[in-house]
Amino acid sequence: MQRLKEKIIKEGSVQGSNILKVDNFLNHQIDVSFLNEIGREFARRFQDAGISKILTIEASGIAVAAITAQYIKVPVVFAKKTESKNLDQNLYQSEVFSFTKGKTYQIMVSSKYLDNNDRILIIDDFLANGRAALGLKEIVEQAGAELVGIGIVIEKGFQPGGAILREAGIRVESLAIIKTMSAGEIVFEK
Amino acid sequence: MQRLKEKIIKEGSVQGSNILKVDNFLNHQIDVSFLNEIGREFARRFQDAGISKILTIEASGIAVAAITAQYIKVPVVFAKKTESKNLDQNLYQSEVFSFTKGKTYQIMVSSKYLDNNDRILIIDDFLANGRAALGLKEIVEQAGAELVGIGIVIEKGFQPGGAILREAGIRVESLAIIKTMSAGEIVFEK
Repeated sequence: MQRLKEKIIKEGSVQGSNILKVDNFLNHQIDVSFLNEIGREFARRFQDAGISKILTIEASGIAVAAITAQYIKVPVVFAKKTESKNLDQNLYQSEVFSFTKGKTYQIMVSSKYLDNNDRILIIDDFLANGRAALGLKEIVEQAGAELVGIGIVIEKGFQPGGAILREAGIRVESLAIIKTMSAGEIVFEK
Repeated sequence: MQRLKEKIIKEGSVQGSNILKVDNFLNHQIDVSFLNEIGREFARRFQDAGISKILTIEASGIAVAAITAQYIKVPVVFAKKTESKNLDQNLYQSEVFSFTKGKTYQIMVSSKYLDNNDRILIIDDFLANGRAALGLKEIVEQAGAELVGIGIVIEKGFQPGGAILREAGIRVESLAIIKTMSAGEIVFEK
């Protein structure tokens, strides 16, 4: 998605070897008009997938998922993060290790909102090591639902998440894949 | 907003004396189509307010703010929650006590995204004791921006937040105000 790549180059900033800050339009301040272009593109790519629900994770996936859902015309469910174990039997739960925060947290979705009739599109802002996506995949499996694909705004192609998910047979659609990045230069795949 | 009241009665559930669960359409699963009605209503009520940005707080305010922003045609900034103090000089920060979680957390907004030219609309899903709204108000003041109003989806009128904010001279627009509630009955104001 050319406009996204241009926006990353113009407004993003690389910190250290693997942090890309896009707080200006995606993770802190949200350019809602631009998010509509992203939502339309996800809808176009997954138009024949028969999606019944979009699943994301709080917090920065929510805006992307909500705007995308307007084009696919399905509800959004967002997984909640917690550091404590919750043994409620009516929850699907998974563990996610966050490299950014250096700790493991639980993610959970009420069993009321996903079931074995659902065809799920996972949406998230970033894909790096793939831990959040794998946690959401596990929740989809616990629900007996079908994971029809994963839509990612920015994939860090130099980290292993994308390869792990694609090798597991999952359709991953990333709107921009970063091949390499440094303070002065961001190189995209393709 | 009549449709919202009907939806709260039909899909909400009251737990104990002051918890209203609206996870079915607002806080966990998101009815994006319905959120568009909410967004249009906020835009209508604040149409002459000259808003330059919408400010909300992660996580459940984000979807409401993003959808509303489509109608007002401004960016969204969401305050981030953290339990640790961050002494970065480039942040506006405030402390919020959460009655739901029984603890105090910091909220923060990068100083890049709010300044003294901004006219801010705060959007949130719930108003109860008003602590989150007061924390966001403090951030608006730190930025030297003008707080033009607060848009709330559901106000618990039997808790003090609404009165505190209105007595401070702030325009608060709540789309549904609950006067009293119990397991069997929810009564709205007006």
